[in-house]
Amino acid sequence: MADVNVPSAEGDSPSATPVGRRGRRARKGRENTARLIEQKPFRTRRNTYPKVDAVSVDELEMIHEASLKILEEIGIDFLNEEAKAILKASGADVDPSSDRVRLDRAIVMDAIGKAPSEFTMHARNPEKNLHFGGDSVVWSAVASAPNCVDADNGRRPGNREDFRNLLKLTQYFNIIDLNGGYPVEPVDIHPSVRHLDCLSDTARITDKVFHIYSLGKERNLDGMEIGRIVNGLSEEEFARTPVVLSIINSSSPLRLDTPMLQGIIEMSRRGQVIVLTPFTLAGAMAPVTLAGALAQQNAEALAGLAFAQMVNPGAPVVYGGFTSNVDMKSGAPAFGTPEYIKAALVGGQLARKYRIPYRSSAVCAANTVDAQAAYETVFSLWGAINGGGNYLKHAAGWLEGGLSAGFEKFIIDVDLLQMVDEYLQPMVVDEASLALDAIRDVGPGGHFFGTEHTQARYKDAFYSPIISDWRNYESWAEAGSPTAYEKANRLYKQVLAEFEMPPLDPAIDEELTAFVERRKEEGGAPTDF
Amino acid sequence: MADVNVPSAEGDSPSATPVGRRGRRARKGRENTARLIEQKPFRTRRNTYPKVDAVSVDELEMIHEASLKILEEIGIDFLNEEAKAILKASGADVDPSSDRVRLDRAIVMDAIGKAPSEFTMHARNPEKNLHFGGDSVVWSAVASAPNCVDADNGRRPGNREDFRNLLKLTQYFNIIDLNGGYPVEPVDIHPSVRHLDCLSDTARITDKVFHIYSLGKERNLDGMEIGRIVNGLSEEEFARTPVVLSIINSSSPLRLDTPMLQGIIEMSRRGQVIVLTPFTLAGAMAPVTLAGALAQQNAEALAGLAFAQMVNPGAPVVYGGFTSNVDMKSGAPAFGTPEYIKAALVGGQLARKYRIPYRSSAVCAANTVDAQAAYETVFSLWGAINGGGNYLKHAAGWLEGGLSAGFEKFIIDVDLLQMVDEYLQPMVVDEASLALDAIRDVGPGGHFFGTEHTQARYKDAFYSPIISDWRNYESWAEAGSPTAYEKANRLYKQVLAEFEMPPLDPAIDEELTAFVERRKEEGGAPTDF
Repeated sequence: MADVNVPSAEGDSPSATPVGRRGRRARKGRENTARLIEQKPFRTRRNTYPKVDAVSVDELEMIHEASLKILEEIGIDFLNEEAKAILKASGADVDPSSDRVRLDRAIVMDAIGKAPSEFTMHARNPEKNLHFGGDSVVWSAVASAPNCVDADNGRRPGNREDFRNLLKLTQYFNIIDLNGGYPVEPVDIHPSVRHLDCLSDTARITDKVFHIYSLGKERNLDGMEIGRIVNGLSEEEFARTPVVLSIINSSSPLRLDTPMLQGIIEMSRRGQVIVLTPFTLAGAMAPVTLAGALAQQNAEALAGLAFAQMVNPGAPVVYGGFTSNVDMKSGAPAFGTPEYIKAALVGGQLARKYRIPYRSSAVCAANTVDAQAAYETVFSLWGAINGGGNYLKHAAGWLEGGLSAGFEKFIIDVDLLQMVDEYLQPMVVDEASLALDAIRDVGPGGHFFGTEHTQARYKDAFYSPIISDWRNYESWAEAGSPTAYEKANRLYKQVLAEFEMPPLDPAIDEELTAFVERRKEEGGAPTDF
Repeated sequence: MADVNVPSAEGDSPSATPVGRRGRRARKGRENTARLIEQKPFRTRRNTYPKVDAVSVDELEMIHEASLKILEEIGIDFLNEEAKAILKASGADVDPSSDRVRLDRAIVMDAIGKAPSEFTMHARNPEKNLHFGGDSVVWSAVASAPNCVDADNGRRPGNREDFRNLLKLTQYFNIIDLNGGYPVEPVDIHPSVRHLDCLSDTARITDKVFHIYSLGKERNLDGMEIGRIVNGLSEEEFARTPVVLSIINSSSPLRLDTPMLQGIIEMSRRGQVIVLTPFTLAGAMAPVTLAGALAQQNAEALAGLAFAQMVNPGAPVVYGGFTSNVDMKSGAPAFGTPEYIKAALVGGQLARKYRIPYRSSAVCAANTVDAQAAYETVFSLWGAINGGGNYLKHAAGWLEGGLSAGFEKFIIDVDLLQMVDEYLQPMVVDEASLALDAIRDVGPGGHFFGTEHTQARYKDAFYSPIISDWRNYESWAEAGSPTAYEKANRLYKQVLAEFEMPPLDPAIDEELTAFVERRKEEGGAPTDF
């Protein structure tokens, strides 16, 4: 089925597109029951604010030029023979005695020009389809943390229960648009079958778009198959319907390793989404100067993105920016710093130059949910929103530079995202909102609480936070002086208690079970990656 | 002495302007000794990022039009006879039977056109002179809190010791540009002489520009005299040298009361700075719709600013925006909300339209120094910086919607301001920073830590925070798992222990003492305001 909007008989929103043979069936009975925590429905959001440039057009051109020179003169190591063959066939200068590949600017820019500027990703619940690119903004929760933490049980390596609980938070909150990866790595599942258990959990507990890891060809293929099954697509439909995405990190500086290249090959070949994100920490894997780190980020991103277009011209891709700085005393990575914000802005400028959707993040280096966790996260959001980020990853629950997924942090971040979502709603300026009659009626020295103008609007006039405590000091102290952290602790447990699984077509459920069982019988995926 | 830059023999920065007969003397011996807390020197900062508009040019015009209609058709209550006489003489329609004054748009816009777009404020230490307007950004700490709070002593009404300690923090940190008012109200000093004690404390403990309250004509006159004395100015020099500023809040909706109007009259008459800030809480003292609240904010601001120009054409003024929303369940004011950010952006658009420096704030509603305190404050900064705020008030230590000044919050905010200051430093993009040679030398798979390019730059490459803890979890846990709040607690005490009074010319000190003693003998200021 083509990527067009088909209003359905059930009165779906215009963005809901029934996809494939089981799309309509799967949507039955998915209405939310009344929930204790008030939240806005799942909705699309656009960032119509002007984007903020951190460098001039000329300076941007200098960064662009430097990255092209890196690709032409220094080159990138592509650690995979199949990839090198594809590159060679596309005219790249492939060194036969090493993994080094040099890419002429014409080849790079020609390939980049084939990437779509915007595309739609499909979820098994078509109301949760997502638009990537343009002014659209979508975000996903923390991904790939080895540990998780909450106030009651402390910090521990991830397990399947924690994994599932974090998925429940992801599903519960309408403000989280998609699954950006395993919120925590469940180390109690054997690596050979972990992707099967995790992705079938993801596909059942959530009805949103999801991520699959590029950790070897088999995992990509299994993940895509699970995406195909739960979206009810034929092989043919799948190849023209993006339903899964995979983050591809270059091994900075200037390398793409085998699992990542296999990921691009398998995913792009089938029209699935690649998010190419170099992890260029200035002072460590990239130059200590931001301009240099960004030139390197851009070179690595362009190399991977161009390669995806060589695999399959027109394959949907996202430009990922993740340049930050390290603490030069210890080498520890830092996030949400002034340097991070600037890099996020320039990343956006580059992505817009290439007309490719832009991925940024909402991250911090804090070890607990204190003021630091909050200010670093909001500074990251500042960079992502001002920079025109289309996809914000790690936007709920990220702690410790990604080494831990926090349950309380997740809830506080949901409040932050809901606030940013509200900030992105354009201000209404018209006769009614200018309120001249109300101002006239109230007059000097009056009060607006009781006016008709206020009464007609007060319920929805302002964002109503789930964490922020606006009580006066006395009421707050009487209530036990709860911090944001303590309120979040209560709230996440309440969500888990309230949680209901989203409906899943029994036939799809069965097909999913059969696939996972078969693949487990076959031994899953190799673990020697 | 004219407002020009006179490089001095001592090698001052170009912004340092020796002012008046005692300027040069006062600067001797003021070099800081080595301090335990590393910080950048006092420096000017500019916000060269593009400003972010929240409404279109047409929508801005609608808000502007609505505020002119308010002034023409509804009018403002000016609760002071002297003010009404000045307004009448300037052609305003003054109702003889009430306090209502209606202002024709031609009169308003003509007066507004006389306000300077930029001006310099002078401090007793000329290195701390400040530029207002254009791209300049200056900020001051929390002001006017009735209470203060720290982790050791809890929350209590302000006293002189707390007042002085907060002034010491203000002076100590170079990132705080000026004194924006009493950081906490010292209620142990009798109101009749409080301004004399507080302002002489301010003038001695800090060598920065300071604020005086408009709480009756006598206090304005006393405050200006203290400003004149410590800046070593003759009466004549004083009238052309802005050294003190005063916040004028309208009594929203649509009223200016006697102390505020007297403040404008006395301050503007002598060329001192008025910051006209309506406190328009949407849903309470202003319409529940942001557009309406902003139209009202703008009407009140224009009325006061135009009045200042009627008193003395060309008097330096600042356009203050402080529109936020209330919690519609309780009526409690909220800060750092999505609505607050939008209002801050539009306030900036209006101030730029009138070419008047713009005042915003960094505020929160949190009752303690938790994640909420941090995220609301950073959201406020987001609005202020994106909105092009030239003067940010309450930018360190503000808690509880202004009801409390927090010692730990002060330190955390200093870190935030230092980060924003770093964000405002333009990124360098040139051959050296693009680092192509370093990238070539390191090559694929290498590391930048040891390179010459890194070694030559690593010390100053990135902002080094005073609060943020970037240690890994294990080291942090071993150190006792300190939160930002706990680190700030230690740090503020360290600053107070380290504090040294800035040098003050003994003759000025004597003159100040004599003035305060004389005014106390005269009984200070009336307390029946």
